[in-house]
Parts: sequence; structure tokens; C-alpha cells
Amino acid sequence: MGVTAAKGFRAAGVTAGIKASGTPDLSLVVNDGPTFAAAGVFTSNRVKAAPVLWSEQVLRTGELAAVVLNSGGANACTGPAGFQDTHATAEKVAAELNVGAGEVAVCSTGLIGVRLPMDILLPGVEQAVAALSPTGGEQAAIAIKTTDTVHKTAQVTHAQGWTVGGMAKGAGMLAPGLATMLVVVTTDARVDAAGLDAALRGATRTTFDRVDSDGCMSTNDTVLLLASGASDVTPAAEEFAEAVRTVCADLARQLIGDAEGASKDIRIDVVGAATEDEAVDVARTVARNNLLKCAIHGEDPNWGRVLAAIGTTAAAFDPNELDVAINGVWVCRDGSVGEDRDLVSMKDREVVITADLKAGTASATVWTNDLTADYVHENSAYST
Amino acid sequence: MGVTAAKGFRAAGVTAGIKASGTPDLSLVVNDGPTFAAAGVFTSNRVKAAPVLWSEQVLRTGELAAVVLNSGGANACTGPAGFQDTHATAEKVAAELNVGAGEVAVCSTGLIGVRLPMDILLPGVEQAVAALSPTGGEQAAIAIKTTDTVHKTAQVTHAQGWTVGGMAKGAGMLAPGLATMLVVVTTDARVDAAGLDAALRGATRTTFDRVDSDGCMSTNDTVLLLASGASDVTPAAEEFAEAVRTVCADLARQLIGDAEGASKDIRIDVVGAATEDEAVDVARTVARNNLLKCAIHGEDPNWGRVLAAIGTTAAAFDPNELDVAINGVWVCRDGSVGEDRDLVSMKDREVVITADLKAGTASATVWTNDLTADYVHENSAYST
Repeated sequence: MGVTAAKGFRAAGVTAGIKASGTPDLSLVVNDGPTFAAAGVFTSNRVKAAPVLWSEQVLRTGELAAVVLNSGGANACTGPAGFQDTHATAEKVAAELNVGAGEVAVCSTGLIGVRLPMDILLPGVEQAVAALSPTGGEQAAIAIKTTDTVHKTAQVTHAQGWTVGGMAKGAGMLAPGLATMLVVVTTDARVDAAGLDAALRGATRTTFDRVDSDGCMSTNDTVLLLASGASDVTPAAEEFAEAVRTVCADLARQLIGDAEGASKDIRIDVVGAATEDEAVDVARTVARNNLLKCAIHGEDPNWGRVLAAIGTTAAAFDPNELDVAINGVWVCRDGSVGEDRDLVSMKDREVVITADLKAGTASATVWTNDLTADYVHENSAYST
Repeated sequence: MGVTAAKGFRAAGVTAGIKASGTPDLSLVVNDGPTFAAAGVFTSNRVKAAPVLWSEQVLRTGELAAVVLNSGGANACTGPAGFQDTHATAEKVAAELNVGAGEVAVCSTGLIGVRLPMDILLPGVEQAVAALSPTGGEQAAIAIKTTDTVHKTAQVTHAQGWTVGGMAKGAGMLAPGLATMLVVVTTDARVDAAGLDAALRGATRTTFDRVDSDGCMSTNDTVLLLASGASDVTPAAEEFAEAVRTVCADLARQLIGDAEGASKDIRIDVVGAATEDEAVDVARTVARNNLLKCAIHGEDPNWGRVLAAIGTTAAAFDPNELDVAINGVWVCRDGSVGEDRDLVSMKDREVVITADLKAGTASATVWTNDLTADYVHENSAYST
């Protein structure tokens, strides 16, 4: 399952001892070929963790033989020494697997500003190599968890006999200090690096990029896609892209569903926008409004907060024409009071907010969560 | 005190009955001249409340005879009928004072999307006119409170014998549904409308505009400055601007100190920026980072969250050169671990974060608050 659902991959998840909690903390995903094409997308934060800088660099060849991932430390803001730690980790994996260090991507997640315990991590790599298995996908998904309450995997198999599978960690972008969303997707389809890159960028643009739990962008976000070609099938580009999108959307929805402290998953649909970019901008601005997120936590259909948020954007709309629905009830019509707010039921975990800008035909959806006292508690108590 | 500290002004604050709580809810400030010059700045939100649209319009003449302010309802997102309510309020004040409705500014604060009870508000205007007094500044400051726990006034008197005084309401920009920051400043200096406008814009740019409790921009923010000329002194433009700035800074600091649910007042100083705009952008981005606000609530000097926030901006800086201090301890040097974080004491209510971008000589300060379970509670329970 997950990263081992596709043929040609082995994986492992072990307890190296990086985490004080004694839970699994080191994962390894190995591509046994015959192809080694790979692509990746990374955080757009300008403060990038050492493993992000490393992995961006090695991916320039368009090939990866393995990905090593640790929880228990983000290795971000650790300076040149931290980068050397990442390099040493890749060298260790390479030596154990008999590949080049330049074929090994590295991902880290945990607290920012703390060096990794290399004396514990490097022996852990040996452990992980020894544990590699064609059924190790679940263990690998477990060992990358941080504040995640459940591990997250997804897979789809095409009628032609090829599979796309993946794993993810991250409590939304909510991750505290904690940095943050790591995703590895594998496939046994035959797709070259350029094809993987196109499929992955297309998929992340409308899935992971539209998950916005708390507006906080991490220093470590990484999404990798590896192709072993082991199915020997070369899929149609469009079908492959759709499969990758399906797996990414599934994993993204699981991230939102497990966001720290959240009691509601909020889907914000912006319709009637002049452009897709403006629809995303409006949806993201609504998603980041703390007052609205608190109101939804309180099951309060406070549509005024939606309008106040939309009003801060530069998108095309007339304030006197805005319509807003909460769970299908159009509580705001033409920028003013609409249907009775008492008709809105907000008992379910999923809440849908629809905003019609009446300025065009473009639309976009962004997912977020409510803001809760549990979120505050989890993120104020984390590193102390 | 407050709006009646300067000569030539009378004010009142009464309980009209708009608020269910039975606390004071209607204020009136009257300029008795001999001059009536006035200036105002308003929310930049594109969704503007009816009183904002009205007051912007009447201020085009550069003169005001009175300001009427109500709590208990924002009169925002109430459509054309809501605008008529504002108009009727101004007409009522004008009739009672024997001035023109075009000389009366209106401010409202409270829940968005609810019509004002005009049958209660209009008799309240008569009450307020009857209660007008040259010592009514404090009562006026009390009657504009919403979730404010204390009323807020400030004043300075120049050696030449002129005074600037003011009142404010608003729990930072934290105000829930609640919309939001209302400020009236008065002076008995002789200053024309253009001079008032310049002084007011200069003052708000570095005071109220740099208060950012929760990133949520209101539909009702209004800051008015009225000059009676009653001191008969025409001050030097620079001295007058400085006095207005002092009163605005004092009131702004009081807003942050009374922000909803907050337990910390956070001062973010960005130095070494290439431009002042970039310094403000970086400071504001840090101020809006929920994870950091939670960490500070937990008295956790989690500097990694400061870097992760700075990294999302487009300001000029090298990630490997960033320095960050918390309460004077440089916990981050050159983008990596600096002084021991255990040296940082965060017991006091005021917390100072300093970020040195090492990209120039510009600087800016933005004030914010921590994010607390009390904030979540207050804002999730508000309208239900």
C-alpha cells in the first residue's frame, strides 16, 4: 500500500531513536527500477531547510534511486553544518544501497533550529535498509508522522495495469514549529522526468497548494514523484496526470481531516470570479480569516466575516452584488441580508462556504480548518 | 478629558437602549467653533459600512459640526436601507443642533449584517443632545465601547495653549463581527482642513495602521479629527502633527493593551530593511503568523517561526544573514542558531521581537497580540 502499491518499490519505517517519544522516526523508499525518473515540488518559502536545498539540487538530474525521510527534527535554520548533516545522510543511504548520493533525496520534519542527532540517525539508516520490503509502505507512512494522529496513504490502479500510490504527513499547514508537509508518490508506469514533472505540478497546483489550514508556510514542504517503470506500461499523459491528481487530492483531503486541533473541515468555493487566480486569492483570504474560523468553530453562520474578508482582496467584484452561502443557504444576497441564518445547520464536520463574485466564470476551491482552543494549546505548548 | 480636553467641544454618552446589555451605547461630539475644519481616514476594506460611506461623503467639504457614534450595531452589509438609516441619524442630529446633515459624521460599531433599531436610536439622539457637556468626553468614550474592557482617551497640551485630545474604541483589529476601531480626535488649534488631513494621515500611517491584532480588517474603521480653533492659536505644522501623532500613538497602544483574549502585547521591530514599505511588510507578516502568536502565548521563544514567516515575504534579505532577537536576546544569528534560547525571559506582558534583515537602513514597528484560547472563545461565541 501507499508508496509500495506500485511495483518496483521497497520501503521501510523504523525507530532510530531520533524522537524522544520512542515512536518510529525514519523512513526509506527505494526505487528498484528499471527506470529512475523523478520529479519534485518544494516549499516556496525563501527560508528553506537543508534537506529542501539538497533535494532540489539532486533532482536536477531528473532521477532518484531513493528517498530517506526523518521525523523528530526539521533540520531548518541550522546553517552550513545542517546542510552537511543532510549530505552525510544521503551519503550513508547511497553507500548502503550502492548508488550515488546524488540519487538520494532527503526529507526532514520536526522542530526548526535544532541539529539532527547524526549519531542516532546514521545507524538508523542501516536499520531501515535492513528492513526494506515490497510491503513496507505502511511502516514508511507511520514513521514520518509528527503531530499526525493517523498515517496517510492512497493509491489508484489503472485498468492497463499501472499504479500510482503515495504517503503523506502533516497536520495541514498547521504543523507547529514543525515543518511540515512531506509527500512521496510512486508509480510503476513508464514516464520520463519531464512527464512526471508536468503531472506533479498540475496535481499539486489544485490539491496541496489549496490546502491552507493556518496560513503558515513551512520551510520543509516537499512532494516527490518517483517512477520505476516496473509495469512496463507507458500511459497516456492525460490518464497518468489524472491518476496522480487523484492520489494527491486524496492525501490532501486526509491532511485537512487530521489538522491540529481542528473540529471542522471547511471547503471554500469561490465561483463567478473573473480569473482562476482571483478565485484562489479570494478563497485563500477567506480561509485565513481568524474571526471566520472562530465563528465556524462556534457553528455560527457569521457571513459578515466572509464579506469583510473578501473586501480586503483586489479581485474584481461589486460589494453590492456579493452572494454568500453557508452549507447551501444563501445567507447573503447582493452584499446584504439574504435567507434566514437560522436555516443553516453546521453540525457536521464538513462546512461548505460558497461565495459568488458575479464577475466572470472562473472558480476555485481552497480547504481550511476552524480555529480552536486546542490549536492554540497544541501550538503554544509544543517546544516548551 | 479626551474629546472635550480641547476648548470649543461638548460631548455626551448615553444609554439609548440599542444594546441588550443596557450599557451606554450612543455618543455625540459637537464642535462649537469658531472653526469647523475636519479630516478623516477610513477603512480600506472594499466592503464598507453605511456610516463609512456617509462620513466619507460629508467630509468632502472639509467641515464637520458634529459626530454621532453608536455601539450595538455596525450597520454594515445592510444595503440601501442601512444607508438610509445612517442618513436619518445624521438628519436627526442636524435638526437637534440646528446645523446641516452634511456637517454630521456618523460612526457605528457592532455586529455586521443587522439593521439598527431606529425607533430606539433616534430618541437616543435627543437624549444625547440634552446631555451635551464641556466635560462629557469620558462619558462619550464609555458609550462607544463594545468588547473593550476599559474606555480609552488621551490628550496633550502644547505650551502655546492649544490641546489635542481623543477617544478610541476597539479591541485592536481583533474586534469580532464587530466592526471595529472608531477614533475621534479634537483640537482647539487653528488648523485648516488640509492641515488637519496631512497631520492625521501622517499620524495614522505609523500608529493605527501598524496595529494588527489578528489581521482582520474591519468594514467600519474610522478616525476623525476636528478643529474648533477656540484657542485662537495657529500652531507650527510640525508641532501640530507631532501632537496628533502622540495622541494617536497613545490611543493605538491602548487598543493593543485591551485586545480581545490577549495575554501579551507584541512589538515587532524590523530593522535593516531596504525600504520602509518592506520593513512594514515583513513586520506585518510576522504579526499575522498564528503559529508564532501561539508560541508567544506559551512564552516559547520559538524563533524558527519568525524566520518561517519572514521567508514568505518578497522583501530584500539573504536567508543566511537574518538575525532575530526576542526580548533582546539574539536567538538567531545569520539564519541559524544564535544565543541560548533559555536566556529569553517572556514573563512580562510586553514582548519585543527584533528582526534585522541586513539589507539597508529602513525600519518599522508593528504591534500585535498573542493568540489565545480566550480569543477563540470570545470570537466563536459572539453572535450565537
